Amino acid sequence: MGDYTILLELALILLFTKLFGIVVKKIGLPQVVGFLIAGLLLGPCVLGWVHPSETLKIIAELGVILIMFSAGLETNVEDLKKCGLAALLVAAAGVALPLVFGFLLAAAFHGGFSGVDTEQILRYVFVGVVMTATSVSITVETLRELGKLKSRAGTVILSAAIIDDVIGIVLLSVVIGFKNPDVKPLEAILKTVGFFAAAVAVGIGIHFLFKWLNKKFPHTRRLPILGLVVCFLYAYCAERFFGVADITGAYLAGIMMSGLKETEYIDRKVEINAYMFFAPVFFAGIGINASFAGFNANTVWFMLAFVSVAILTKALGCFSAAKVLRYGWGESLVVGVGMIARGEVCLIVLQKGIAAGLIEPDYLAMGVLLVIVSSFLAPVLLKFIYRKSDVSRPPHTLGDPKEDLLPNVDSSPLDKG
Amino acid sequence: MGDYTILLELALILLFTKLFGIVVKKIGLPQVVGFLIAGLLLGPCVLGWVHPSETLKIIAELGVILIMFSAGLETNVEDLKKCGLAALLVAAAGVALPLVFGFLLAAAFHGGFSGVDTEQILRYVFVGVVMTATSVSITVETLRELGKLKSRAGTVILSAAIIDDVIGIVLLSVVIGFKNPDVKPLEAILKTVGFFAAAVAVGIGIHFLFKWLNKKFPHTRRLPILGLVVCFLYAYCAERFFGVADITGAYLAGIMMSGLKETEYIDRKVEINAYMFFAPVFFAGIGINASFAGFNANTVWFMLAFVSVAILTKALGCFSAAKVLRYGWGESLVVGVGMIARGEVCLIVLQKGIAAGLIEPDYLAMGVLLVIVSSFLAPVLLKFIYRKSDVSRPPHTLGDPKEDLLPNVDSSPLDKG
Repeated sequence: MGDYTILLELALILLFTKLFGIVVKKIGLPQVVGFLIAGLLLGPCVLGWVHPSETLKIIAELGVILIMFSAGLETNVEDLKKCGLAALLVAAAGVALPLVFGFLLAAAFHGGFSGVDTEQILRYVFVGVVMTATSVSITVETLRELGKLKSRAGTVILSAAIIDDVIGIVLLSVVIGFKNPDVKPLEAILKTVGFFAAAVAVGIGIHFLFKWLNKKFPHTRRLPILGLVVCFLYAYCAERFFGVADITGAYLAGIMMSGLKETEYIDRKVEINAYMFFAPVFFAGIGINASFAGFNANTVWFMLAFVSVAILTKALGCFSAAKVLRYGWGESLVVGVGMIARGEVCLIVLQKGIAAGLIEPDYLAMGVLLVIVSSFLAPVLLKFIYRKSDVSRPPHTLGDPKEDLLPNVDSSPLDKG
Repeated sequence: MGDYTILLELALILLFTKLFGIVVKKIGLPQVVGFLIAGLLLGPCVLGWVHPSETLKIIAELGVILIMFSAGLETNVEDLKKCGLAALLVAAAGVALPLVFGFLLAAAFHGGFSGVDTEQILRYVFVGVVMTATSVSITVETLRELGKLKSRAGTVILSAAIIDDVIGIVLLSVVIGFKNPDVKPLEAILKTVGFFAAAVAVGIGIHFLFKWLNKKFPHTRRLPILGLVVCFLYAYCAERFFGVADITGAYLAGIMMSGLKETEYIDRKVEINAYMFFAPVFFAGIGINASFAGFNANTVWFMLAFVSVAILTKALGCFSAAKVLRYGWGESLVVGVGMIARGEVCLIVLQKGIAAGLIEPDYLAMGVLLVIVSSFLAPVLLKFIYRKSDVSRPPHTLGDPKEDLLPNVDSSPLDKG
């Protein structure tokens, strides 16, 4: 190998992410927080043992595609249909409020609206988009621990979190589509809509192809490999022909292959690839690339405001939606607080925005802070609410065979072993 | 992703390697041959759909480290000890003859011995080293099909093939150590010996650490991840402190962690990583990088001579050793022919030599040819010998509990699904 230093760096990244992953899990935080801390520690900011490099960048970029493909595979479309309007309303409110207030916050800190061009508006919108996607893994763990995972609030949180991932990814695609200066607004929208239409149309064919392959070659390695082929092709076509982010393509490819008999087998193989090697490099890479060099008082204030707004608006939006659905006060609070946690998708969206020039690299740190703070707050507040109020309503799926049809998001793959 | 063309190239590589892997397997050849053909077809030589790039190079380099680590994990040291002198003798003869005649062949074609310097001598030796390592997977498949896998000849072939991998890797380390112009010959030998001594000494500690970890955290993902950490550290230290090839480090790391209760679990996780993504890129990469631009009559003659000498000397060496051990004519022929197949390690050694400047990149094609021809010849000849002669001696392990202690090399991971 030409530059063998990378071998040492990979060893350090894998060792530190695993160690810190275990430590943060012991204190009840998701492993991704440990990965971020490991990266910050190893990177130039603290120890300086690992430096950003082309090799790490390539591994991270492949990693994020695999992570999103796996997330797509784990999306259970049938369950989403069943959960229906309640989850959709909670998700929509939980997207709308952060989006609007993130937009206003960015405008307030970065020059307001006098004489702004489309590009500046897009930058404001993007700050809102970063706030949209919920990470459900930590809430799931907490609810399971409290024995409330299959309660009405638990079910709604699970489904709504998946729906707002989808909405977040669509919003990212639109914003990135608009960003291209050669592309007219209408064209950007048409291209994004065109991509989703084409992806679903082709995807239905792929879905049936895999259904047939699953039956003919069950449990053979050709299934996950062909799955990867489709994933890479979708990611490529998204960028090449529609100006849509590659991760959107990978995510949709996963969704189109979800719900099949062998989906779990395919996902397991992809996930081992992703979470044993690629994902630690991706998440640690965020810490390694973090830089505080351009920080000033304004940046710090903006970061703190960003984290507060992201958490408060998400909680308020989802709480209000639950109240509209006539949930009790305690239950609505659980829904609101259960949705505040941010994780993988927030960081991935942020990185895509930096790559597309929508936001300064300095602001990567605000994503890291949001993930750490919200992952810490969600379980603490949930436990507090359950202790204070009596939200032990009868679970609305009790004794119902639908109980087993809960979205298959038992825990983040990051949280295994 | 910056240059998203790589996504299309990865999709094509995975698709073509899988398709050709399945096709060649149907006609009784190992999948690695299909991978090579897929790479040749996709590369600039034929279709030109995939071009050599930095990203593919990085993936291939990581891939080969994972392949060698997995090979190390699958080496059963206890079995080797039991197989003892017979296998060692066959392996040694099967290494010595190709080494000597490869050396002479290179000298005959590339200027002889008048006025050569050390570097030129090393280049000659290297041609011999490329010929040493046997690939056992195809012979194993053929013997299993013929019901002769657990015969005396089968047992000896299996063990001898593992031993000559080890010898081949050691020889490669010595040659690469000598290659460095700043290093004196004695220093090179001392460094190589020092590396093996240090690797084994530290490895014993690691072995017991993993034994303890295995007991404390059975079947958790931290085991394979820590395994990867050790693998990358060994690979790094080999290059950094001893001037030994990184793959030697990875291979030794695997051996030091072999034979544990959880070794198979670790290997399975590493192997899924390696053979679902990295290995196809590595082997296809050999075809993609193949160039026939610098070819002339001399190159072609040398290639043909190289393949013939590699096959004949290996067969003759192993046949003679078997005769010395008083095996019958037919049985000795089976041992000789069963050892001619070359595969992964041959190609890996060749690539290392090209990277170290020991041989021109043009000669990569001779490795490809050797792998294809020998993989084709071995099963054809084995079946012919078994049909013509009566080698159905009673298997020397019949009814012996040792039968189950055969080296755990049932088939190459490449040949699964």
